[in-house]
Amino acid sequence: MAPPPASQAMQAIKVGILGFGTIGSGTARLLLEQRERISRRAGRGVELARIVDKDLSRPRNVAVPRELLSDNVEALIRDPEIQIAVELIGGIEPARTLVAALLENGKDVVTANKAVLAEHGPELFEIARRHGRSIAFEAAVAGGIPIIAAIGQSLAANEISSIHAVVNGTSNFILTEMEEKGQEYAAAVAEAQRLGYAEASPAMDVNGTDAAQKLAILARLAFATQVSWHSIPRLGIEIVQAADMRYARELGYSIKLLAVAERSEQGLQLHVSPTLVRRGTPLAEVRGAFNAVRVVGDAVGRVFFHGLGAGQMPTASAVVADIIDTAVGRAAITFRGLRLWERDDHAPPLQEPDSIVSRNYLRFHVQDRPGVLAEIAGILGKNQISIASVIQHEAETEDGGPVPLVIMTHEAREGAMQQAMAAIDRLAVVRPGSVRMRVRG
Amino acid sequence: MAPPPASQAMQAIKVGILGFGTIGSGTARLLLEQRERISRRAGRGVELARIVDKDLSRPRNVAVPRELLSDNVEALIRDPEIQIAVELIGGIEPARTLVAALLENGKDVVTANKAVLAEHGPELFEIARRHGRSIAFEAAVAGGIPIIAAIGQSLAANEISSIHAVVNGTSNFILTEMEEKGQEYAAAVAEAQRLGYAEASPAMDVNGTDAAQKLAILARLAFATQVSWHSIPRLGIEIVQAADMRYARELGYSIKLLAVAERSEQGLQLHVSPTLVRRGTPLAEVRGAFNAVRVVGDAVGRVFFHGLGAGQMPTASAVVADIIDTAVGRAAITFRGLRLWERDDHAPPLQEPDSIVSRNYLRFHVQDRPGVLAEIAGILGKNQISIASVIQHEAETEDGGPVPLVIMTHEAREGAMQQAMAAIDRLAVVRPGSVRMRVRG
Repeated sequence: MAPPPASQAMQAIKVGILGFGTIGSGTARLLLEQRERISRRAGRGVELARIVDKDLSRPRNVAVPRELLSDNVEALIRDPEIQIAVELIGGIEPARTLVAALLENGKDVVTANKAVLAEHGPELFEIARRHGRSIAFEAAVAGGIPIIAAIGQSLAANEISSIHAVVNGTSNFILTEMEEKGQEYAAAVAEAQRLGYAEASPAMDVNGTDAAQKLAILARLAFATQVSWHSIPRLGIEIVQAADMRYARELGYSIKLLAVAERSEQGLQLHVSPTLVRRGTPLAEVRGAFNAVRVVGDAVGRVFFHGLGAGQMPTASAVVADIIDTAVGRAAITFRGLRLWERDDHAPPLQEPDSIVSRNYLRFHVQDRPGVLAEIAGILGKNQISIASVIQHEAETEDGGPVPLVIMTHEAREGAMQQAMAAIDRLAVVRPGSVRMRVRG
Repeated sequence: MAPPPASQAMQAIKVGILGFGTIGSGTARLLLEQRERISRRAGRGVELARIVDKDLSRPRNVAVPRELLSDNVEALIRDPEIQIAVELIGGIEPARTLVAALLENGKDVVTANKAVLAEHGPELFEIARRHGRSIAFEAAVAGGIPIIAAIGQSLAANEISSIHAVVNGTSNFILTEMEEKGQEYAAAVAEAQRLGYAEASPAMDVNGTDAAQKLAILARLAFATQVSWHSIPRLGIEIVQAADMRYARELGYSIKLLAVAERSEQGLQLHVSPTLVRRGTPLAEVRGAFNAVRVVGDAVGRVFFHGLGAGQMPTASAVVADIIDTAVGRAAITFRGLRLWERDDHAPPLQEPDSIVSRNYLRFHVQDRPGVLAEIAGILGKNQISIASVIQHEAETEDGGPVPLVIMTHEAREGAMQQAMAAIDRLAVVRPGSVRMRVRG
């Protein structure tokens, strides 16, 4: 005789949510409206027992029984019946203090908070270990794309050699608007805000912070590299202008905010920057609020994942998958095995940023007079940077006024590029506002 | 104090491989050459203890200590030290009998064998349950793409509404050759055989059997639907000619062998068929031996996975991930939770194939004389099938000899299409060899 199904044998597991914002509402919706489905897949009842938020008056798009709502976070922390706590507050504090307290009070934690993990991961993981608890965080990177499970479990036989990721949906939405509608940056940001794809203050999204935090988490997972997201060189999409989109297109590229981790004999290079990606390749075709991650492993080769990286329900989907994983005991095993945030002698050293080699797209605003290209080309040459192609359209006026000059370089060292750009920007014929972006593929 | 790392506390787990062919050699290579890496990620030693094959004389691309090799499968089955058995023989028998014996002798099983799972899954799963063992089978579908983990775990919060998959690398390689080089089917098959992408007898790959077996596994996992792969309507790529590739291109499509599971109010439709897929969409851009799976869930939206679906090391990557999962205990939990092959009252009924609605590409070989198009259009109209577009180029000769006529239909019921095709094929002006394919997007 087979044993009775687990759902009959085990008590329901109680879940508490901290943070009743967009993702919190989506998670509550799934747990309440799909309770039967989720319990079936967990093999036991999964019961939403409490939602805590300091502001309970805002309207939400989910109907929650009044008795589940509370503004008393201490009561949730001290409730011994709640076994899984879902942190959806976001940001560093009070999230950090609360997650620590939840773990210390014997709760397993599920979180979508990349900021607190990228900033205080080692400390929180250590607290979890000390108390025999787990932290699951699939929703912290790339929302609905199961990239944490893929790297941490499904690709575990591989040595990962590179990760190329579009992980900030706000930036990608703005870049797509600029590309498809020819909009300038400011107009595209306004459109993204109007449609809810960008917050009122989207700085963390558009300046590369969010992508760097996610890259730090992926890099620790894939390479066991102890890296603070603060030390990842990053450039945001604010530098991209409609003109760059047009030139990129003319040259056969799209512009994407790429988060890159790439291992070579020189070590592990990590950076976030707007990058020209050859059109027709999968990363170039990531549109709107979608995310994508391209992983290369020594056995599996190239694997590509594409899906919605943010938004209420895609993120809630990942949160609830983690709740199920925690309820069935899989999260505990996975967490135990994570090399993440541990010393690991196999971690590659970080590559010196100056030594990173890549092709470059350069756009200058120069005076339209003889010898300008020769001067710029001379500086590039002196820095061992060779030119692959040049675009200089005829000036629209004849007064020698400023015209754009676009140069694509062959592979060049980052340090040499920086020196050359500084020297070029000192030329009298070059106006302020030079743009440089990496080129891939 | 934290407990000592699991790797020091636990004995090494011993693995036996049955079948020393391409995948077996790749798996052995990973287990031997990356033993330290794999053991580290499993938190304990993972030791390849034995490889069994009836023919040990063939050359393999891995150096295996002689003492690991044996042709005695009984000894492996009865060896109490081997805890994980990896079945890489393929096909139905003796794989079925051996897997059953391995489970009955207390071994957890990892397999890449979609045929035995599609044919005897329920029986083998029942044996595993009775003996408290697990079966892990990530490698059975789409090789290096972790689609089993994605559907079974990462998307567990979702009700899946559709799966569209390119899961036969041989067919996709042949179709890509035909599309890119303008080759006829037979020449592309020969090229695939020369390069090792097709076996000497590729019937199971090109006639849709392999894809239907994989679709049956995915559909059971995603929809809990009790379906035998035999009952999945399937059409292979043998019907595709170079001319169809040209017309598809002219119309803005590529041709892919698509495995489709799609849920609607009419039930679950399942089929495998060469399908026109709009160029520029991710599925249309799957080239060569790559596989891809597109899944839509009610919370997560659309998720897309792309990677190598076959080949030695990508498949071995999935096999070894399953070995690690089994060693750490995650596979046991996952297996316990699988609704697969169980009665499930939530499984949607299969949709009556005749009632499935789709657009269609039709190519006829007709006599070039007045009234032919009117006759064919009349039959389509009588069957409630409306025409979206027609391609009829001028004949190259003037003798009224046969010319191709290509028709794209609007959405039509499968039953009506079949009736109309039969009636059209009976027309005196229509030569044998009419082609019909589904159109997507």
